[in-house]
Amino acid sequence: MAKLLLVNGPNLNLLGVREPDTYGTDSLDDVVDLVRSTAARWDMGVDAVQSNHEGVLIDAIHAARGTCAAIVINPGAFTHTSVALRDALTGVALPVAEVHISNIHRREPFRHHSFVSDVAELVIVGAGLRGYAYAVEGIARHVQQC
Amino acid sequence: MAKLLLVNGPNLNLLGVREPDTYGTDSLDDVVDLVRSTAARWDMGVDAVQSNHEGVLIDAIHAARGTCAAIVINPGAFTHTSVALRDALTGVALPVAEVHISNIHRREPFRHHSFVSDVAELVIVGAGLRGYAYAVEGIARHVQQC
Amino acid sequence: MAKLLLVNGPNLNLLGVREPDTYGTDSLDDVVDLVRSTAARWDMGVDAVQSNHEGVLIDAIHAARGTCAAIVINPGAFTHTSVALRDALTGVALPVAEVHISNIHRREPFRHHSFVSDVAELVIVGAGLRGYAYAVEGIARHVQQC
Amino acid sequence: MAKLLLVNGPNLNLLGVREPDTYGTDSLDDVVDLVRSTAARWDMGVDAVQSNHEGVLIDAIHAARGTCAAIVINPGAFTHTSVALRDALTGVALPVAEVHISNIHRREPFRHHSFVSDVAELVIVGAGLRGYAYAVEGIARHVQQC
Amino acid sequence: MAKLLLVNGPNLNLLGVREPDTYGTDSLDDVVDLVRSTAARWDMGVDAVQSNHEGVLIDAIHAARGTCAAIVINPGAFTHTSVALRDALTGVALPVAEVHISNIHRREPFRHHSFVSDVAELVIVGAGLRGYAYAVEGIARHVQQC
Amino acid sequence: MAKLLLVNGPNLNLLGVREPDTYGTDSLDDVVDLVRSTAARWDMGVDAVQSNHEGVLIDAIHAARGTCAAIVINPGAFTHTSVALRDALTGVALPVAEVHISNIHRREPFRHHSFVSDVAELVIVGAGLRGYAYAVEGIARHVQQC
Amino acid sequence: MAKLLLVNGPNLNLLGVREPDTYGTDSLDDVVDLVRSTAARWDMGVDAVQSNHEGVLIDAIHAARGTCAAIVINPGAFTHTSVALRDALTGVALPVAEVHISNIHRREPFRHHSFVSDVAELVIVGAGLRGYAYAVEGIARHVQQC
Amino acid sequence: MAKLLLVNGPNLNLLGVREPDTYGTDSLDDVVDLVRSTAARWDMGVDAVQSNHEGVLIDAIHAARGTCAAIVINPGAFTHTSVALRDALTGVALPVAEVHISNIHRREPFRHHSFVSDVAELVIVGAGLRGYAYAVEGIARHVQQC
Amino acid sequence: MAKLLLVNGPNLNLLGVREPDTYGTDSLDDVVDLVRSTAARWDMGVDAVQSNHEGVLIDAIHAARGTCAAIVINPGAFTHTSVALRDALTGVALPVAEVHISNIHRREPFRHHSFVSDVAELVIVGAGLRGYAYAVEGIARHVQQC
Amino acid sequence: MAKLLLVNGPNLNLLGVREPDTYGTDSLDDVVDLVRSTAARWDMGVDAVQSNHEGVLIDAIHAARGTCAAIVINPGAFTHTSVALRDALTGVALPVAEVHISNIHRREPFRHHSFVSDVAELVIVGAGLRGYAYAVEGIARHVQQC
Amino acid sequence: MAKLLLVNGPNLNLLGVREPDTYGTDSLDDVVDLVRSTAARWDMGVDAVQSNHEGVLIDAIHAARGTCAAIVINPGAFTHTSVALRDALTGVALPVAEVHISNIHRREPFRHHSFVSDVAELVIVGAGLRGYAYAVEGIARHVQQC
Amino acid sequence: MAKLLLVNGPNLNLLGVREPDTYGTDSLDDVVDLVRSTAARWDMGVDAVQSNHEGVLIDAIHAARGTCAAIVINPGAFTHTSVALRDALTGVALPVAEVHISNIHRREPFRHHSFVSDVAELVIVGAGLRGYAYAVEGIARHVQQC
Repeated sequence: MAKLLLVNGPNLNLLGVREPDTYGTDSLDDVVDLVRSTAARWDMGVDAVQSNHEGVLIDAIHAARGTCAAIVINPGAFTHTSVALRDALTGVALPVAEVHISNIHRREPFRHHSFVSDVAELVIVGAGLRGYAYAVEGIARHVQQC
Repeated sequence: MAKLLLVNGPNLNLLGVREPDTYGTDSLDDVVDLVRSTAARWDMGVDAVQSNHEGVLIDAIHAARGTCAAIVINPGAFTHTSVALRDALTGVALPVAEVHISNIHRREPFRHHSFVSDVAELVIVGAGLRGYAYAVEGIARHVQQC
Repeated sequence: MAKLLLVNGPNLNLLGVREPDTYGTDSLDDVVDLVRSTAARWDMGVDAVQSNHEGVLIDAIHAARGTCAAIVINPGAFTHTSVALRDALTGVALPVAEVHISNIHRREPFRHHSFVSDVAELVIVGAGLRGYAYAVEGIARHVQQC
Repeated sequence: MAKLLLVNGPNLNLLGVREPDTYGTDSLDDVVDLVRSTAARWDMGVDAVQSNHEGVLIDAIHAARGTCAAIVINPGAFTHTSVALRDALTGVALPVAEVHISNIHRREPFRHHSFVSDVAELVIVGAGLRGYAYAVEGIARHVQQC
Repeated sequence: MAKLLLVNGPNLNLLGVREPDTYGTDSLDDVVDLVRSTAARWDMGVDAVQSNHEGVLIDAIHAARGTCAAIVINPGAFTHTSVALRDALTGVALPVAEVHISNIHRREPFRHHSFVSDVAELVIVGAGLRGYAYAVEGIARHVQQC
Repeated sequence: MAKLLLVNGPNLNLLGVREPDTYGTDSLDDVVDLVRSTAARWDMGVDAVQSNHEGVLIDAIHAARGTCAAIVINPGAFTHTSVALRDALTGVALPVAEVHISNIHRREPFRHHSFVSDVAELVIVGAGLRGYAYAVEGIARHVQQC
Repeated sequence: MAKLLLVNGPNLNLLGVREPDTYGTDSLDDVVDLVRSTAARWDMGVDAVQSNHEGVLIDAIHAARGTCAAIVINPGAFTHTSVALRDALTGVALPVAEVHISNIHRREPFRHHSFVSDVAELVIVGAGLRGYAYAVEGIARHVQQC
Repeated sequence: MAKLLLVNGPNLNLLGVREPDTYGTDSLDDVVDLVRSTAARWDMGVDAVQSNHEGVLIDAIHAARGTCAAIVINPGAFTHTSVALRDALTGVALPVAEVHISNIHRREPFRHHSFVSDVAELVIVGAGLRGYAYAVEGIARHVQQC
Repeated sequence: MAKLLLVNGPNLNLLGVREPDTYGTDSLDDVVDLVRSTAARWDMGVDAVQSNHEGVLIDAIHAARGTCAAIVINPGAFTHTSVALRDALTGVALPVAEVHISNIHRREPFRHHSFVSDVAELVIVGAGLRGYAYAVEGIARHVQQC
Repeated sequence: MAKLLLVNGPNLNLLGVREPDTYGTDSLDDVVDLVRSTAARWDMGVDAVQSNHEGVLIDAIHAARGTCAAIVINPGAFTHTSVALRDALTGVALPVAEVHISNIHRREPFRHHSFVSDVAELVIVGAGLRGYAYAVEGIARHVQQC
Repeated sequence: MAKLLLVNGPNLNLLGVREPDTYGTDSLDDVVDLVRSTAARWDMGVDAVQSNHEGVLIDAIHAARGTCAAIVINPGAFTHTSVALRDALTGVALPVAEVHISNIHRREPFRHHSFVSDVAELVIVGAGLRGYAYAVEGIARHVQQC
Repeated sequence: MAKLLLVNGPNLNLLGVREPDTYGTDSLDDVVDLVRSTAARWDMGVDAVQSNHEGVLIDAIHAARGTCAAIVINPGAFTHTSVALRDALTGVALPVAEVHISNIHRREPFRHHSFVSDVAELVIVGAGLRGYAYAVEGIARHVQQC
């Protein structure tokens, strides 16, 4: 069974932990579950990694060569600063879907540029946790029609 | 039954007409059908407009006040140049989902800025025609949980 | 009797319609009435046009050649994007007064530049609907002392 | 009786003194008279200051706390360079109307930015000396409807 | 017989009407006649459109698919602001010649950039009405040697 | 007893080790001792972390949720490049004092911008090791008067 | 006994006078008292000046040559605009500590650059009135170890 | 008989020599022949210069004072870098037509600015060698109607 | 006898006072003497003003109307920041010579722009105190040949 | 025997693994062998580190203090983003040679700036794997002639 | 006898030749005579070169090593574009005086930057031909007091 | 036997002549000898040119068509300003190695951009005269493996 790599960047481990009244009680585990169940509908398994360490994420992406068919990534703050992460993604030559839970275009100007978007196939912004589902479906369709 | 307004901007009438070997044979009618069927799953109807005239789009958005619950828009080239369209969207105070069929981040630098994104709830880029379905689902969920 | 052309740009038809508790109940009709009554004190009539279509505004400005002595314009969002409107104003060689109801200097940076201001005689910003009255008086004085 | 503070910045003392054939014979005294007579129609008195010394203007603005209800200011060249004047205006928390006799948008680029406009209620540009009258009326209406 | 589409943008309807002592008495009709007679020498007919409405121009360009072999365009002010017009030109995949009657490089800085030039084959600037003739000849040679 | 988290960024482990004649013999341990003794005067304990790994610092900041009342941070080179560190600080919602031993305003232009300063309460620059003491006192006063 | 010159720039005379519920009741006199008492602990006296006139501040700085050992300055708005004040500070060649009561990095972009910081020894930002105490201690330590 | 000066800048001597399959076999001699034959139709002779030495081109332009009626120039790479060439053109006060064989707007950004265009009467870009013919005709018409 | 106004800006009172070994022992009095003796050779008297107060300099320039034939000015730091001083110079419509003792082009980038240079007739930079003599001679020649 | 530290940044572990037909079959091990054999000719040993973790690289550089005589570094993507790596290099005060296998000047604009180049002695770009040999020779000559 | 090298850049050979009613009848020969007579008063001879060829000027500057004591240069258009000329000046390590006949600060923005000014001792702008005399005197004083 | 063209730009003739204590006594002749001996190891001959005249360098590059297999160039100051030189290099379609003796990244910002680097195969910076040897070897390997 083909697999997706799900990558979540720095600080995303705080999801659902802090201020549940405001941000809801969905946690990173819920994100992983949602990604797994969506991928399952496309007959794909999921490897998931979250880390606050850029190097851990790069190592995980490298490990996806030969094991995964595509990558769904929410790079968090690395979106705006990490050329190394971008190079890892192009280095393994897998199709990429980029997700941002909140609408980064409403935030500070330094969040308006992404080092990932132009090497991704698709980008989902501001759709909340559901954005991961759209990313999985979008990249699964992309993989299966290639 | 609540309705969505589907807005397609300039040159999107050419969809599917030109170079079918490359871009596929899906036309703007197919986009409208996809939006209608997706919206129907959320018990919503669809009003659809496409025009190469900025003013026609603004008039249609104004007409959505009181008749529609949300807007799904692919502003085409107006994305990058039309403050008037942005002001129409904020003027009617409806939630907005922005869609771009291709990945605008891979194209010319003047396509990297959108006057719509920071007044939209969610933005779907590069997911092909399926992006409209994600936009409909995303904005429908937004409306129904408000 | 000399005439003024009153031009109102995109989205100004929404004046007074939306959120009357906040923005007041004065509508675009009230603006036109205020302009007419002010102009009458200077023995001038008024032709009025509002449109969300740039082309309609340009056509109306062209039609003012030979029939109007001056133009009072609130270009709305076209202020910041329309070179064509600017060229129409300079093309008919009539004196221009520019009005903005709200204080555009407090808003987004893209609203801080006007393509009209340097081809206008005077600019009134942030004085609310009364700004139209000042614009009429200012341009009428300009016309009558030329 | 409520009072306005009228502030005129550097070099405005030269008004009417130099090249009367070109600029007219209206002097700074005429400006003050116009402001007084306009204010009187709104039952307001006027304190007037002109200085080429930034510090004198700031001191005068500070002195307006508790004695004046609003400020009408033509900051002259300080418009473009004085953060201290801006801070004085916000420091006394009085509503402000900004006036420029000539159309600064037609002049050098360094005159296109104002440190005052976004802390003012209204801005009148290019209406000649009459601009002071519009500024007085505009700020008086603002004060009396607050 | 192959046809050219001649597109003239906003405010070009004023040609020859205003200030004939300065700009000459050649009107837009004379431009069309010049284009027709030049095209005839290359055995080509001409469809001509002028509008102050961006949407009308885009619609006309779309209509040229399958009916015209090339486009000669003076986009007027849309040169500098309209991505939609650019996309219409690339959308119909016809070769384009761009003409400007006056030398735009001597004018305001915002007129120094064209959204059309890099999608055109050739650009003629400052040659007066004759520039249309050079554009027709240039694009006709291009078409006939392809 | 309330605790402070003391965070020292990359290369600060070299303090006092290199060129003692020039930089003095105070080491990172001395910094920690100074912070501890100062905090003790405000009845606060100290958790201290130094790392050249961004991820280690982020993890430590996350761990301060619920255990520490404030953060004193010298982000070193991450000051200028790490959005992830900034997001960790805002993610745990603790008050922050930023310290730089040397005067970064005298150094290369890329050191003049800090991603931390606008999310910190106070910033101490150029005061040498004593700057940590001021930061501790400043943030302790902030915490205890909240 | 060595002396410090304490310089407070424009509008700082309003400290504690306006909105005491918000900003507290500490006035400029309280600042001077705090500086005096802190300096006394380092066996230093204090000369204090506050003015809204740039020239008065420059004259005071000049007068410190030969009479003072260091300068503590809150330049207020002159921070961002006054090269003359900077030149006065370097002209008298005394060590300088710069203080800002609020966190200027959270305010408008034009407040992010200081003409003083790179000629100061240390900079204290956002620590409230206590920042003056840190500045005095910091510059006193600097003077006494030179 | 009036004369034109034809100026070709650096590297244009390589025309037709290199890669004839791609660029055609027309050489610089063919350009000169085309210019001569076109000029002859306007009763004008041609002086021609090509050099890779900026100084040679400037000397030739100087020599055209009193001997030539106009200049046709393809400045090659000097277009973008040579103020001296621009000054030579304005120094001899002859009308100028600028030609570029290829469409420089499709090339690197540093080729988008020309130091010649705003001192030329007309500019022909991307019309291939025929562009020289249009330039000759355009400048000949300009000269003969002056 | 015609007079020159000699204006020296902020901090120039420190000339010759500080570090005589480095900067020499020539003081501002020596500058005035040099200007007087040079002017005398052109049968001109000298009014001299130095101040650290911008307003004092502006007042002195205003007072030169009708009494002086030209102005020699070293604006010091106001060179780079004072639009008001520039406006005073153009307001009195006297010819101006600008002097800088040191070579400002070797100093910080913010010293490379002068608000005075484009309203001056001539500018002397880096010639030391002798620069004043050249400025006097230059402006005297300018006055006497007008 | 003196030693070199060889540092390879993120993603360089993929060398030779991916697309051997295109990039050749030389791997990172081959790079290390080449560096060792080249260094041996200069009587130097080699410590080698590659990591996708910035912190690991910084730690390795720190460890080179007292053990290595120079550093040869290919910082990969950290070239363009890591001030921390730069600071580590200057912190250990060893001479540095920077290598890039491909010609970064032909790639995206964000790869044109290096935070390492101005703290390196020499920079080798685009020479393929051989570039490491030149870097070793260059830095060895530098070390041995110091 | 010590010698000066007088360097005049491109197009300065046109001095006095063109439009004598406007620019006067002084030619480049008159400039050389003025420089010779001024230099003679300081017991210096003059070598003079003018060329429109950058290389000729550089060669002449190189030849001044060992034969001349200083350089007076009006680089003409090379002021703004020639790093090679700048490097020649620093390469021969002679003191330099830069002259511009007209006030370049009143001309196009690209003339506001000089590659020579920060490697010159003094700069004379806008003083007409007399500026050469001031430059000679200034650099002679500089040489003789070294 | 294949040949290399060695090109040295302006001011490089001064190598070794000036300040031998500082820069060493190696002259341009030594550079040529080093290049010849290195090339000989790759069975290549060398044509060498140095000039301060851009045109001479371009002519020499043109002459290399058909006679040389590659170019080694130190463009000196033309690196940063000469598009013509770049075009000559691409015009002859030979592989290029760029050399800079000193580390240009440590010098003025205008030396950080090269018009040659992105059309070269490899770039060697800061390796002193040895850099020429690396360039020769690098480009020889490139030629011989093509």
